[in-house]
Amino acid sequence: MGASEVRTFLASARAEVDEALERFLPAPPDCPPLIGEAMRYSLFAGGKRLRPILTLAAADAVGRTVGSPSGAVRGLALPSACAVEMIHTYSLVHDDLPAMDNDTLRRGRPTLHVVYGDGIAVLAGDALQAEAFALLAREPAADDPVVCARKLRALGAIAAAAGAAGMVGGQTLDLQAAGQAPNHPAVLDADGLRGMHARKTGALIGAAAVSGAIMAGGLAAQVEAVGRYAADLGLAFQIVDDILDVEGDAAQLGKTAGKDAAGGKPTYPALFGLEGSRHMAAQCIQRARQALADARLSEGWLPAVAEWVVGRSN
Amino acid sequence: MGASEVRTFLASARAEVDEALERFLPAPPDCPPLIGEAMRYSLFAGGKRLRPILTLAAADAVGRTVGSPSGAVRGLALPSACAVEMIHTYSLVHDDLPAMDNDTLRRGRPTLHVVYGDGIAVLAGDALQAEAFALLAREPAADDPVVCARKLRALGAIAAAAGAAGMVGGQTLDLQAAGQAPNHPAVLDADGLRGMHARKTGALIGAAAVSGAIMAGGLAAQVEAVGRYAADLGLAFQIVDDILDVEGDAAQLGKTAGKDAAGGKPTYPALFGLEGSRHMAAQCIQRARQALADARLSEGWLPAVAEWVVGRSN
Repeated sequence: MGASEVRTFLASARAEVDEALERFLPAPPDCPPLIGEAMRYSLFAGGKRLRPILTLAAADAVGRTVGSPSGAVRGLALPSACAVEMIHTYSLVHDDLPAMDNDTLRRGRPTLHVVYGDGIAVLAGDALQAEAFALLAREPAADDPVVCARKLRALGAIAAAAGAAGMVGGQTLDLQAAGQAPNHPAVLDADGLRGMHARKTGALIGAAAVSGAIMAGGLAAQVEAVGRYAADLGLAFQIVDDILDVEGDAAQLGKTAGKDAAGGKPTYPALFGLEGSRHMAAQCIQRARQALADARLSEGWLPAVAEWVVGRSN
Repeated sequence: MGASEVRTFLASARAEVDEALERFLPAPPDCPPLIGEAMRYSLFAGGKRLRPILTLAAADAVGRTVGSPSGAVRGLALPSACAVEMIHTYSLVHDDLPAMDNDTLRRGRPTLHVVYGDGIAVLAGDALQAEAFALLAREPAADDPVVCARKLRALGAIAAAAGAAGMVGGQTLDLQAAGQAPNHPAVLDADGLRGMHARKTGALIGAAAVSGAIMAGGLAAQVEAVGRYAADLGLAFQIVDDILDVEGDAAQLGKTAGKDAAGGKPTYPALFGLEGSRHMAAQCIQRARQALADARLSEGWLPAVAEWVVGRSN
């Protein structure tokens, strides 16, 4: 794939996700205006849409192996893509709360609780999570038992990734470690850091990709390969995030730079240095590409998405 | 049904739900110990288990009409019963936060955020919601397309009830109204109060009952009748809650009495007086019983559950 084809894919996937998110979200008079507005404030704040793009790219890669029309495969996977983005967004809203990371700036704008208050921020996050699962139960609308079975599997993977063993468990470990003295038992070493991130960001990135593969009808070996690809991609994503936090400035990142180090949280650059961290990220991407190649899933956009993740500047 | 039979049913349903909740929740090493502990702190705090009891009673009532063995029906409905209780519990944890109602006492014990901190309280609530949907996707484990279709319908009903058009939407309206001057547009009149409660507590009580009817294989007319029964039951529940808040003392309620009136929230006794409120609750229960009778669902425990709701003292 050429660079301009990749850009075109990313732009069209983002546009499709944005349109679908607006369509899938409840709006007044079904819901009170304030909660509809608050959910949209964070959902349409200019996110990268990495997770839904992964879902669509994974569905596309599986679809190619059986010659499915790409439009049909995208339609099957689009609800999963949007649901994962809603869950990711809710987690950012709650992580930014004063009770957690106390961030006032996100993607270049005041965070939700700064604008709407802490109570509405808690509720908007709660609603985004509930609506994600309502969407997964509802769409794609189908009586076909094969599609129903896929929907339950995809939903189960996403819910497990969002829960206590996944994303919320990772945030718990992060919160326990933050601001502790260096010799406190909750402070994470290199293995602990990897485990925390595998839960906090890796699990949902994995579920994003895996749910796309499931909805496209992937065989067990294909779903498993997509999961391995996404696990390495998720780790690379986090390493790059830490590097950008050290190197970036607030204008480029759209959030407060240097925040991680200041909060006493361990980072990859702090543990392995900048060069060591860059090398680790490159190794992850190499393993991710290999997982795809082993399962003959290298056609399509998944390799390019991996390159994009390590090459990004925000 | 005699009073002692009803007590036996309620006690056995509670015991079954408690056992299943412990079994269905993630535990270490799958999740970090702290989040597992925090979820259990609130989930096993001596709640009445009204919602899961409704789920099991609705499934039982539908099962009787087709002669299904009660054990089989209970097994089908038990995951829905537990998921609804997990969602209800998460909503209490978040509502008690300083950013919302700022309650320090619940069911006679310090609230979760008082014991574990605000951040862990946000996360435990988030995890309980995610685990509820993970459970609904996973259990009852079945390849049978009929059961899969029921699971998706029940999950969809529960998720919609929990979301922006339901429970979270109601809490949003409640939060907007709280502490406002009497002529503020967000302050609720009688219709507004009913609408707020229909979302905040009615929607999930409805989904509790409806999901039980769905999982037991209820016909459309049966599911609809159970929904009407539960809507009136939910309203009666809220009216009685308001009456108890005026009349009760903290020791009996296990929470701070008089809190609603003090916070500037409208209540049924404030709008209609104590006698008027008691009369409204009785009318609700009358309509709820009629909905059951119309659909030939009066056999079983549903009428007794309605009596229990208005007769309770905490």
